[in-house]
Amino acid sequence: MSADAKRAKTTSSRHFDLAAYLAAKTDAVNAALDKFLPAEKTKPATIHRAMRYSLFAGGKRMRPALTLAAAAACDGTDAAAMPLACAVECIHTYSLIHDDLPAMDNDDFRRGKPTNHKVFGEGIAVLAGDALLTQAFEIAAQCRGWPRYSHRNIVLEIARASGSLQLIAGQVADVEGEGKKLSVAELRYIHERKTSALLCCAARLGGMSANCTPAQFRALTDFGHHVGLAFQVIDDILDVTQTSEQLGKTAGKDVAAQKATYPAIVGLEKSRRIAEQLTSRAFAALKTFKGKAVALEALAEYLLKRDR
Amino acid sequence: MSADAKRAKTTSSRHFDLAAYLAAKTDAVNAALDKFLPAEKTKPATIHRAMRYSLFAGGKRMRPALTLAAAAACDGTDAAAMPLACAVECIHTYSLIHDDLPAMDNDDFRRGKPTNHKVFGEGIAVLAGDALLTQAFEIAAQCRGWPRYSHRNIVLEIARASGSLQLIAGQVADVEGEGKKLSVAELRYIHERKTSALLCCAARLGGMSANCTPAQFRALTDFGHHVGLAFQVIDDILDVTQTSEQLGKTAGKDVAAQKATYPAIVGLEKSRRIAEQLTSRAFAALKTFKGKAVALEALAEYLLKRDR
Repeated sequence: MSADAKRAKTTSSRHFDLAAYLAAKTDAVNAALDKFLPAEKTKPATIHRAMRYSLFAGGKRMRPALTLAAAAACDGTDAAAMPLACAVECIHTYSLIHDDLPAMDNDDFRRGKPTNHKVFGEGIAVLAGDALLTQAFEIAAQCRGWPRYSHRNIVLEIARASGSLQLIAGQVADVEGEGKKLSVAELRYIHERKTSALLCCAARLGGMSANCTPAQFRALTDFGHHVGLAFQVIDDILDVTQTSEQLGKTAGKDVAAQKATYPAIVGLEKSRRIAEQLTSRAFAALKTFKGKAVALEALAEYLLKRDR
Repeated sequence: MSADAKRAKTTSSRHFDLAAYLAAKTDAVNAALDKFLPAEKTKPATIHRAMRYSLFAGGKRMRPALTLAAAAACDGTDAAAMPLACAVECIHTYSLIHDDLPAMDNDDFRRGKPTNHKVFGEGIAVLAGDALLTQAFEIAAQCRGWPRYSHRNIVLEIARASGSLQLIAGQVADVEGEGKKLSVAELRYIHERKTSALLCCAARLGGMSANCTPAQFRALTDFGHHVGLAFQVIDDILDVTQTSEQLGKTAGKDVAAQKATYPAIVGLEKSRRIAEQLTSRAFAALKTFKGKAVALEALAEYLLKRDR
């Protein structure tokens, strides 16, 4: 971590037990998702089995954790933030199911398990993704709104972050960039959309659920944007430095698919420095919260130091 | 048309110029969709070209027309109903793009043109469908709400009609029913979800945009449900009685795919009688509107008499 980042960090987060925090939030998110989704036996059972297979495949729940931590930083509650945390996780899971399809990244494993289409076939995998995307909006609509953050604002927030100008734009640019020599600016365009948009949305939704002030909303936007970019740079680094076993998914696939990555364009060392700088920027954004954003700080630190 | 249906019909719709009505509404819907969607050149251009390719492929705009006609029956305006009419058309188009994929119905032609994946490839076709589904919620959020029909209610209405218990359930049951001998009840389960759910949603959204009374909402639900079922029975009939050229899509594909259809289970003549009975039920539901539902009546009559 850079000196800047160290200065920006409050002392409180150094004693924060992130492992216990993540374990508790993961349990709470899993219980909420289980309630929001139709039971596995609900007719037609195939689609609900397929939706739940990927949703409960052991995801790290980083996005819901960001939503809950952002809510807490704004004096909100888990209860108010939970529908939005779950909605974001449904969007994330749908995007993974569709990205893994043979027509896209053609991945056989995800989180150490066969991908959705390997288990249920391509047709059901497409529909399971569609169903999770649709379910996200149904779940999000269960939140309570505020005059400043109405259901209308919340739906727009999710739809824009997930739409053809953000999340889907990132996937399109990623697919189209394969085998091409991209500039750092072009790669950043992909990362901002493919990863940062939804992480940023996750943080902002937490603030919205807590009826945050406009200044807090701006801080969460800045934080989410930079954490998201750092997250993807690190993903690129891990893809070339870790084994498939360590990652729980196919390692080296970016190189195999001739995808542009930070390590490929600027080298490993510079990639690591970029990730650190982005994380410092994220920490700096949290100053607004005057020490109340301990969980967000710990999450950002974890994302920088993670090894899978 | 049965004697019942004739009695239920008001005289006013007999002089209603549906062709002029549909032409005007199609133009208005197309103009609104063009405004709501990112321009074709918006980066990444591929996804916006793909979304627009299917959205402007000459669809009959029956669902948006139902929304606008339902709004009019409740003294609403086209302006208030338009975002919801466009949202429903985006959902319909996304479902066609995904249903046409090789992993599902594997259709090469739709509305006389190559299907989305034949032009843009499977990966982009999946993403174009995803983007239209997401866009539907963004567009729907642009409508004005009412205390009785808030943005929350409207998002729930669309998400539920399109989700894993309705639209997607229908497609799953349809795919799983291929090659199996289904009962009329099982076939009706598929039709209610695959077709009726979204047509019913289209009608209800029109009422919601017009701040309709609970009685009007119930009438639109009843109407949409029965028109939707009639529509799908007629689709089954046309598949066996018309040529591909007449339909603008592959004819006889239900038989080829060993799909259960009304003609296959109960024969052509009984299928025609069922369609007429369903349409009569739809007309009966419109009595509540005391002659103000002329456009809805004309649409229902058109759906029964259509030959493609």
